[in-house]
Amino acid sequence: MAVALSPAATSLRLKSFTAVRFFSFYRKTPKTHLTPAFHFPLKPSTSNSTPFLPLHYCRTRSFCSVISAAVSSGEATKTETFEKNELQKGERVGEFRKRLRIVDIKGGPDEGLNRLDETLVVRGWVRTFRAQSSIIFIEVNDGSCLSNLQCVMSSDAEGYDQIESGLISTGASLLVQGVLVKSQGSKQKVELKVEKLILVGTSDPSFPIQKKRVSREFLRTKAHLRPRTNTFGAVARVRNALAYATHKFFQENGFVWVSSPIITASDCEGAGEQFCVTTLIPSSRETTDSPVAAIPRTEDGSVDWSQDFFGKPAFLTVSGQLNGETYATALSDVYTFGPTFRAENSNTSRHLAEFWLNAKTDSSISKMIEPELAFADLDDDMACATAYLQYVVQYILENCKEDMDFFNTWIEKGIISRLSDVVEKSFVQLTYTDAIDLLLKAKKKFEFPVKWGCDLQSEHERYITEVAFGGCPVIIRDYPKEIKAFYMRENDDEKTVAAMDMLVPRVGELIGGSQREERLEHLEKRLDGLKLNKESYWWYLDLRRYGSVPHAGFGLGFERLVQFATGIDNIRDAIPFPRAPGSAEF
Amino acid sequence: MAVALSPAATSLRLKSFTAVRFFSFYRKTPKTHLTPAFHFPLKPSTSNSTPFLPLHYCRTRSFCSVISAAVSSGEATKTETFEKNELQKGERVGEFRKRLRIVDIKGGPDEGLNRLDETLVVRGWVRTFRAQSSIIFIEVNDGSCLSNLQCVMSSDAEGYDQIESGLISTGASLLVQGVLVKSQGSKQKVELKVEKLILVGTSDPSFPIQKKRVSREFLRTKAHLRPRTNTFGAVARVRNALAYATHKFFQENGFVWVSSPIITASDCEGAGEQFCVTTLIPSSRETTDSPVAAIPRTEDGSVDWSQDFFGKPAFLTVSGQLNGETYATALSDVYTFGPTFRAENSNTSRHLAEFWLNAKTDSSISKMIEPELAFADLDDDMACATAYLQYVVQYILENCKEDMDFFNTWIEKGIISRLSDVVEKSFVQLTYTDAIDLLLKAKKKFEFPVKWGCDLQSEHERYITEVAFGGCPVIIRDYPKEIKAFYMRENDDEKTVAAMDMLVPRVGELIGGSQREERLEHLEKRLDGLKLNKESYWWYLDLRRYGSVPHAGFGLGFERLVQFATGIDNIRDAIPFPRAPGSAEF
Repeated sequence: MAVALSPAATSLRLKSFTAVRFFSFYRKTPKTHLTPAFHFPLKPSTSNSTPFLPLHYCRTRSFCSVISAAVSSGEATKTETFEKNELQKGERVGEFRKRLRIVDIKGGPDEGLNRLDETLVVRGWVRTFRAQSSIIFIEVNDGSCLSNLQCVMSSDAEGYDQIESGLISTGASLLVQGVLVKSQGSKQKVELKVEKLILVGTSDPSFPIQKKRVSREFLRTKAHLRPRTNTFGAVARVRNALAYATHKFFQENGFVWVSSPIITASDCEGAGEQFCVTTLIPSSRETTDSPVAAIPRTEDGSVDWSQDFFGKPAFLTVSGQLNGETYATALSDVYTFGPTFRAENSNTSRHLAEFWLNAKTDSSISKMIEPELAFADLDDDMACATAYLQYVVQYILENCKEDMDFFNTWIEKGIISRLSDVVEKSFVQLTYTDAIDLLLKAKKKFEFPVKWGCDLQSEHERYITEVAFGGCPVIIRDYPKEIKAFYMRENDDEKTVAAMDMLVPRVGELIGGSQREERLEHLEKRLDGLKLNKESYWWYLDLRRYGSVPHAGFGLGFERLVQFATGIDNIRDAIPFPRAPGSAEF
Repeated sequence: MAVALSPAATSLRLKSFTAVRFFSFYRKTPKTHLTPAFHFPLKPSTSNSTPFLPLHYCRTRSFCSVISAAVSSGEATKTETFEKNELQKGERVGEFRKRLRIVDIKGGPDEGLNRLDETLVVRGWVRTFRAQSSIIFIEVNDGSCLSNLQCVMSSDAEGYDQIESGLISTGASLLVQGVLVKSQGSKQKVELKVEKLILVGTSDPSFPIQKKRVSREFLRTKAHLRPRTNTFGAVARVRNALAYATHKFFQENGFVWVSSPIITASDCEGAGEQFCVTTLIPSSRETTDSPVAAIPRTEDGSVDWSQDFFGKPAFLTVSGQLNGETYATALSDVYTFGPTFRAENSNTSRHLAEFWLNAKTDSSISKMIEPELAFADLDDDMACATAYLQYVVQYILENCKEDMDFFNTWIEKGIISRLSDVVEKSFVQLTYTDAIDLLLKAKKKFEFPVKWGCDLQSEHERYITEVAFGGCPVIIRDYPKEIKAFYMRENDDEKTVAAMDMLVPRVGELIGGSQREERLEHLEKRLDGLKLNKESYWWYLDLRRYGSVPHAGFGLGFERLVQFATGIDNIRDAIPFPRAPGSAEF
């Protein structure tokens, strides 16, 4: 199994950036033993003799040719038979081979015991490195799971000289081949007895993420490296799982994913707190040389929007809902999943600043998930929101066990039981009016006075879910129309609208939704009452002119969902590259 | 099975917007028969007697309570047993009931014959409507599939008076209950013999999408209604399937989805053709009152960026790749799937204007799919790109048969066989140098002269895939470094870089990718050579300082993929709400 790798491996440690040689070394292998058994099905019509390679060769050679060529283990045997045979329809797709990931080794129920004595190759980054007399312990992580693979190396292993030269340190990347054995330690069931080690890339001693714990504040300044930590790796995987579960839920239930526009010149969304998108400001980024005098202007000194890219002022969207409605009234059930933007200083924003997880939730961009259901009322909307939330939470509890255990231990004690409650407990609904009654009768004294018509504050929402309903998720419905948006459907009492907010313990409002006003006269009256320009809403009103249907939907901030599901208290740590006032680095 | 609906149904036709009554009518049903058998597991701790409803009631009542209450068919029987029992962990998630969709009836292999004699309820929009003596044929579509459900109604059916009143016309929305029977016609196997019809929303006679065919140009001005046409409904469904297949492919292969930032103040992407994002211009949208004088300026008359939202010039991203690399060097395999923006007048853009499908591909926003693979070289990259493309194409051929048949008949004859070729044929790879040789030896005379170092033009790419390789997808690799981006890995010849472009018949370049330069010195030398500011790339260079690994990735324009897969020749028709110079409506 061992391969004559030593010349290359030796040379690697002579240079701190070894990839040149590393690469040229395993690059030559494939091209040589190609020609003989090679079956070339396509002849170019020209008569030259250039050796064209059909891609299935390289595809089946391996998903990571880097590795298989380097170790030439038994993994490559399939290639040859594959090249010779007739490719059959449908079989080739997905044939490319996946890299062996650490999660493939340790992620199963046996935590690797089912693969004992196998010779395996892993590649990843050194998390920790320690020597115990002549035995070296290297913890290797490849990001596929929280766990490292402990690699145990004695001085007779190939590449041990690289250890001696001191080039292998925290943060370095490497490739290790060895036999999986039972671990002597108690922390893991298996470890890799190293036969051969290749240093891929060294890590400069200035590597900022050393073994000692670093603060999340500090790591925000290293957003390009922080996914190499336990916390941010786990957040990235859970975030990914939540996104995929979102798609699965809606796809399995027949919803169509619709891209809502990101730039809008429509007047529908209301002014204020929006980012302007323009090509009028002639900024050269290197010099930030942008004379105001060069901005085109009209005679009265205003910006001449007619010369802008879109011919009028354009903004980043704050919501895709209105656009989503257009597709729901054609395809019945749709959802959007895209970015939305608010140019607000959210430290002063009730909505964000009071987020219960004590968050500085000042990210200016968050992804929104906005489903829209045709032929549906508010009850259907609540049912869908509940099923959705339970689905995605259950999905991560089942599929991200290791990461969730990590959060449970290090980020928020009890988060697993909090999330299990969401899956298991009945969601309760009550009207806003009933909620006000309940608060008025409560023995607790609130900072913000309670009366019908007031917006519910966090303290009220907390009381309702945490005290009145003992930790049960609660949906409050039928809010006073004055405190809700114009498009929400007026109830028969003419005072409230068919709106709902879903509150969950600790986090508070997670989802907001409503049945939409599908009656043309009602909607027009509402626009008039709010002094909104009906002309701007021509297409939105058209949906009520032509085959209007009862419909409803909700919105969920994806980053808030990530916080809810991980316990991460700052939204800047729930998104890979957060944007906030004064901050748009990376 | 028939229900005493007539009072409501009769009243419906008296008003053109019937949803008020329609709704109040089926709204009262649930609330009444609730209390008796009601098992309330959660008692609020206050002592008031407000009747709180646990949400599982409304969830299980039905996914579309609107309908089940209106028809009170057998569909509701499950609800009761559900309410009474003890909910068991895990069972409740996803229990909410889906609306019966037309695709559920006609989408199976039997095209509905397996459901003969069942009483069914559908809701949707009238596509066409015709009378044949006293028999009425209504084609109802709900967007779940291309097919309409033919509903046949005779004068003894409930709601026939609504037909007589003339309120049911193209575009109207309705709810139909009937028995599925064998169709007399040849166009479909089954049809619905209507027992009861409820008009939900009328359609004003001005409805712009009448039976006569309307041009796609015209429909672009009706982007809010065009998904109600066959073409745009089919595009929306196939687009959705391509997106979901994209997620499935990468998720099943262990890739982690990463959100790349949309707003960036990083200098990495190079200036020009970018949209500026700002809050400095005090635009009020209603009046477009934005005095240039109000823009903050520095002493020398430049825009004072320090007062802008991000404290410096910020732009919409043109690519998420550099950010993707940061996560790939931590999690190994990642992908982005998000919007990118180019403020270019693409009518003059080679890249877009020469798109082979004769497209005016001037959409300024397109979604990009950008996978990034660690421990991978260009061969792995090509293998992954090929497997990806074959997977998503196979997915739509299998899952969107009806829509693909529609495109094959009406949009691009032969598209199914073109796509099948992509799945079945071997992808061929050849170097740029070999491609130049091949072109120089070709008997064809090209408009653009061929010599080593030139960028390949469409005519060249077409010749290679369509003539030289007879319709086979071709990947050209190892391009001269002068015509490629700074981050691509230099080959050992020092003249070319490890870049690849995938060309497919008729469409041309569909995917572009490269192995990235992972060697610090090489990358710095390249930045110097291009006079790029190394300081700006500090974090990108850091990836090469700390555990650098060979890595590679590619980019695919999602809208181009939609065009490729549907034959739609204008990119404005491949995206729900396109954005282009002078155009950002809806």
